[in-house]
Amino acid sequence: MPTLIHYPLCPFSRAIRLAAAECELKLSLEEKKPWAWAADFLEINPAGTLPLYRDEDGGMLCGSYPISEYLAETGVDETGDARAFSFFPGDEAERGEVRRLVDWFHRKFDSEVTAYLIGEKVIRRFDSAMGGAPNMEMVRAGQANLRYHLGYIGHLTEERTWLGGEHLSFADLAAAAHLSCIDYLGDVPWGEAEEAKQWYARIKSRPSFRSLLADRVPGLKPPDSYADPDF
Amino acid sequence: MPTLIHYPLCPFSRAIRLAAAECELKLSLEEKKPWAWAADFLEINPAGTLPLYRDEDGGMLCGSYPISEYLAETGVDETGDARAFSFFPGDEAERGEVRRLVDWFHRKFDSEVTAYLIGEKVIRRFDSAMGGAPNMEMVRAGQANLRYHLGYIGHLTEERTWLGGEHLSFADLAAAAHLSCIDYLGDVPWGEAEEAKQWYARIKSRPSFRSLLADRVPGLKPPDSYADPDF
Repeated sequence: MPTLIHYPLCPFSRAIRLAAAECELKLSLEEKKPWAWAADFLEINPAGTLPLYRDEDGGMLCGSYPISEYLAETGVDETGDARAFSFFPGDEAERGEVRRLVDWFHRKFDSEVTAYLIGEKVIRRFDSAMGGAPNMEMVRAGQANLRYHLGYIGHLTEERTWLGGEHLSFADLAAAAHLSCIDYLGDVPWGEAEEAKQWYARIKSRPSFRSLLADRVPGLKPPDSYADPDF
Repeated sequence: MPTLIHYPLCPFSRAIRLAAAECELKLSLEEKKPWAWAADFLEINPAGTLPLYRDEDGGMLCGSYPISEYLAETGVDETGDARAFSFFPGDEAERGEVRRLVDWFHRKFDSEVTAYLIGEKVIRRFDSAMGGAPNMEMVRAGQANLRYHLGYIGHLTEERTWLGGEHLSFADLAAAAHLSCIDYLGDVPWGEAEEAKQWYARIKSRPSFRSLLADRVPGLKPPDSYADPDF
């Protein structure tokens, strides 16, 4: 069985966990704290980022981008033995749109929301080198940016079944992975974002989401709504 | 002929220009200033990033990631009519390594070097909303980080012909695209980075690089060494 080296509140790791579950690809999970950069870890991935994917022969892929494209490439068999889940479904234009949105969430949402909130409320809390109390200015910046992104998700779902188009794609999983980390902190103002909430409820109720909802980080309890399908 | 909407000193645009030239794919270039976000541009790409790729039917791809994966997918014909240049050559492990490095340069190098130097010396200079004089603290941070990245390029080329392995790949083009922007500013300390310089000299002498070396941004003259193969 391949192994995913991950951190429970790492959105990039969560996106791969969701995708693997949608593909019915079983992964053994190995936890790694992203702030505890050991020399052996940096030797494998000098960027120090998660997740890492180790296949059964010991081959290693580093980071969300190589792993997702690898799983996408190997997931669809040309003889027609395609997996039920396609990372980038549709024609050229649709695949391009899905990748645009993956980049939106993994780069733009990450730097405007996740990095602030997970950085301040999780990494800073546990990384003794950073000091414990969150910088509330950063937290408020992340929360303000989040409202804009929830609006964008709502806008996309007004005309589409899923974020990238008619089919569930890696764009939905990347977006849900980031939001689920923020939701663990209780920081998503769902009451102000009805369309985004409806889309998230559909993702949250999928079997692929179960393992994320069972995650617990010691010392950091999620709100009850985190694992509740009727949040 | 497809069109690339680009900015001459945008490294993401440059990487696609280099790749298209290696593929012998002719692109019509349309310049767009990344700081002048017009409503019609944001309607196409709400992230406001470059480049955009418009195919002959008007179909649009937004951003380096969708465009590079699209060109990579369409570049190799399954009947064997493969293009001379492969974005992600080799087996799974090699392709994963190339993508790791593309992410390294397009994300890590970009945020640690390019964003500081192009941001302060180009965008701030021309974007009237930002005010003209570069913040020298940011410039020095970018220059310091650049030394680390030059060392990493040197380290990779000690054991490999190209950055990702035995073959020229999109990793080399992404790295060279960022470095060439910094080189236009005269900010690369080549004298301190012999291995990286040798690798860059090999890329710089390729026909695909010519159009980049001919770029001139009005009001910002590159050093003579910029277009000199014996820099």
